[in-house]
Amino acid sequence: MNQSNCIVAQSGGPTVAINASLAGVIAGVKSSEKYDICYGAVNGILGILNENYLNLSDIFADDANLEKLKTTPAMYLGSCRHKLPDYKDDDSPYVYIFHQFDKLSIKAFFYIGGNDSMDTVLKLSDYAKKINSDVKIIGIPKTIDNDLCMTDHTPGFGSAAKYIASSMLEIAHDTFIYAVKSVTIVEIMGRDAGWLTAASALARNEYNTAPQFIYLPEVNFDKDKFVADIKEALAHTNNVIVAVSEGIHDADGSYITSSKAACDQFGHQQLSGAGKALEFIVKENIGVKVRSVEVNVLQRCASHLASLTDIEESFAQGKKGVTIAAEGVTASMVCLKRISNKPYQVEYTYSAIKDIANEAKSVPREWINDAGNDVKPELIEYLKPLIQGETAVAYKNGLPDYMDVSHLHKCN
Amino acid sequence: MNQSNCIVAQSGGPTVAINASLAGVIAGVKSSEKYDICYGAVNGILGILNENYLNLSDIFADDANLEKLKTTPAMYLGSCRHKLPDYKDDDSPYVYIFHQFDKLSIKAFFYIGGNDSMDTVLKLSDYAKKINSDVKIIGIPKTIDNDLCMTDHTPGFGSAAKYIASSMLEIAHDTFIYAVKSVTIVEIMGRDAGWLTAASALARNEYNTAPQFIYLPEVNFDKDKFVADIKEALAHTNNVIVAVSEGIHDADGSYITSSKAACDQFGHQQLSGAGKALEFIVKENIGVKVRSVEVNVLQRCASHLASLTDIEESFAQGKKGVTIAAEGVTASMVCLKRISNKPYQVEYTYSAIKDIANEAKSVPREWINDAGNDVKPELIEYLKPLIQGETAVAYKNGLPDYMDVSHLHKCN
Repeated sequence: MNQSNCIVAQSGGPTVAINASLAGVIAGVKSSEKYDICYGAVNGILGILNENYLNLSDIFADDANLEKLKTTPAMYLGSCRHKLPDYKDDDSPYVYIFHQFDKLSIKAFFYIGGNDSMDTVLKLSDYAKKINSDVKIIGIPKTIDNDLCMTDHTPGFGSAAKYIASSMLEIAHDTFIYAVKSVTIVEIMGRDAGWLTAASALARNEYNTAPQFIYLPEVNFDKDKFVADIKEALAHTNNVIVAVSEGIHDADGSYITSSKAACDQFGHQQLSGAGKALEFIVKENIGVKVRSVEVNVLQRCASHLASLTDIEESFAQGKKGVTIAAEGVTASMVCLKRISNKPYQVEYTYSAIKDIANEAKSVPREWINDAGNDVKPELIEYLKPLIQGETAVAYKNGLPDYMDVSHLHKCN
Repeated sequence: MNQSNCIVAQSGGPTVAINASLAGVIAGVKSSEKYDICYGAVNGILGILNENYLNLSDIFADDANLEKLKTTPAMYLGSCRHKLPDYKDDDSPYVYIFHQFDKLSIKAFFYIGGNDSMDTVLKLSDYAKKINSDVKIIGIPKTIDNDLCMTDHTPGFGSAAKYIASSMLEIAHDTFIYAVKSVTIVEIMGRDAGWLTAASALARNEYNTAPQFIYLPEVNFDKDKFVADIKEALAHTNNVIVAVSEGIHDADGSYITSSKAACDQFGHQQLSGAGKALEFIVKENIGVKVRSVEVNVLQRCASHLASLTDIEESFAQGKKGVTIAAEGVTASMVCLKRISNKPYQVEYTYSAIKDIANEAKSVPREWINDAGNDVKPELIEYLKPLIQGETAVAYKNGLPDYMDVSHLHKCN
């Protein structure tokens, strides 16, 4: 009757680590003296508005399930892209949400997500303050884009970075085999921030200098400079590999898409990504063998190649969320502070959500080389620790053995 | 002085297992009483024409290197796409090649490759016969397409199939998260044979029914039927996932490309693949959220997710090549015969190269359902054993630790 429960939800795009943070929240509630049941809302904040809950304390009573959840990709609880209105304009969803909180004896709400989700955390925090609610509102970060402020890096990023670097190395092996001049363009996710594309630099080793060039959205893209870069590299190496963020743009802020490149060549519009655009530019201006590879959604859901560091930190950040809520913290997001790089050491902390929501962290210009076509050693040193270690993914019938997510299949 | 040496080369497109077969050849020569040095020609048959050799017996004297080679993707020796002329038209390359064989005291030549490479094996075999050469000419199969005749399946296919099935499962997790109707098209390699696309069916398990449809090049693609399939599936499930071979074509034999689909919609040509084409068709005819994912080159070079069964069989087939050459066999390709499926058991054998070169093996129509939009259980049972087991890929600094291939970097 006098229960003190929690509810958790996930929102935004998938990552490999977002379920590890969920597992952390569940584990945190399990070991907490303050909280009883941990509920999960299905499909983010919509799960509360639709009264679509799971009893996670029941489902994950067995620790083996919790371990399996840690290495299952995407969202066990499903996701949504739902922007709450300003409560001053329309407080009806807020009234409903806090009514649900009362009904379920919720004392803490945890929202695992990226920038947009932190906007929801901020709005709920503001409303809670206004109505003097004692429900603690806590954000748990997650985004492969690594663009949340006030934290050293974000859960999900390290695994995506490991996937990108490994893929770049394997693409390099694939590319090296022909003794003919070639250019390979690898397009990597990142509309506004180039962190993930920068991680491709980690593929360089004693025998691999690829990617030879890295173009990030933090630097205006110059087509002529790009053509000159490639020509110069082809003079002394057969196989040139280029890593490019999907979000590169010219000095006017226009995205580099193949509609533009194709227009130059064929006189009509094509709609495609930056990789295709650069492929067209090479074809048109240099004329060597060229192909583009768009690294697909696997960069955010390939749990079979997760970073152990990322998974462990994501779990710990979920757990930290419960700890700080129990201590009375609210209107905050769990953060990571890097104490030292060698040896790598982090501290789990938190910051006010108002300093995080609707802000974004780009790659600092001083971590990109002057020519704007590569990253500096400082950035590589920052990235290195985040991809270390491999998780022990179990295999069943030759495939990764992930958590059953059939509860997400219900046709609404 | 009286040496009896071997030479090996690799040709065609990369796979995850082609270096395992190379390791098998090297190990076979190491343990052979007949052969002394194992040379490797760099960039396929071109390596012999250009006198570009490596002494593999030296490089892989240490067994630890041989183990590492087994799990390194693509070609350690590089590749080529070089078609020899008919010796009746022009015997000059043959004269040169067999002169090199004499110079190096070569008694056996091993060519690891797919259909085109087996054409080279056939031509060299015919010429060897004509000049009464005692050099044994042996093909070692390799292709992710699984389309070589006379063998149960081909090295490299099992690993690619495991990658495709795992990726399909991870894409399904990625897709399930939103409670909105959506269609995801996954385009998989396979211009003429649908084996690899069929392997996506292995992703189905107790909670995942994706892919809901599988379209192979062995069945003529019917756009109206496709639209009806998708509409019907969307009536009872939110997220429909489609696996499609890059080589699907209509009843006239025209490839389904987005130039066609885009023409329907915008009235002008676009050049892209089958996945994009199906994406356009869904957009135009159904109007739900749709995206296409082109599984990129990683399906043939992601050694971090190799099938142990595939790697072990590929190694054994390389070794078998040396054994049969030593026994006096020539003009043949190493083959696999499946003795039993439960338990899975294979026998290593060989077949005359004339029955293999320039032939291709498609998915039998009776292993595809009547509607032509899915595979039958017989095909799934055939595929299952091939993706079993995981290799112990070593990691260094958070990335797979592969063999140094810097010898391929020389700018020709």
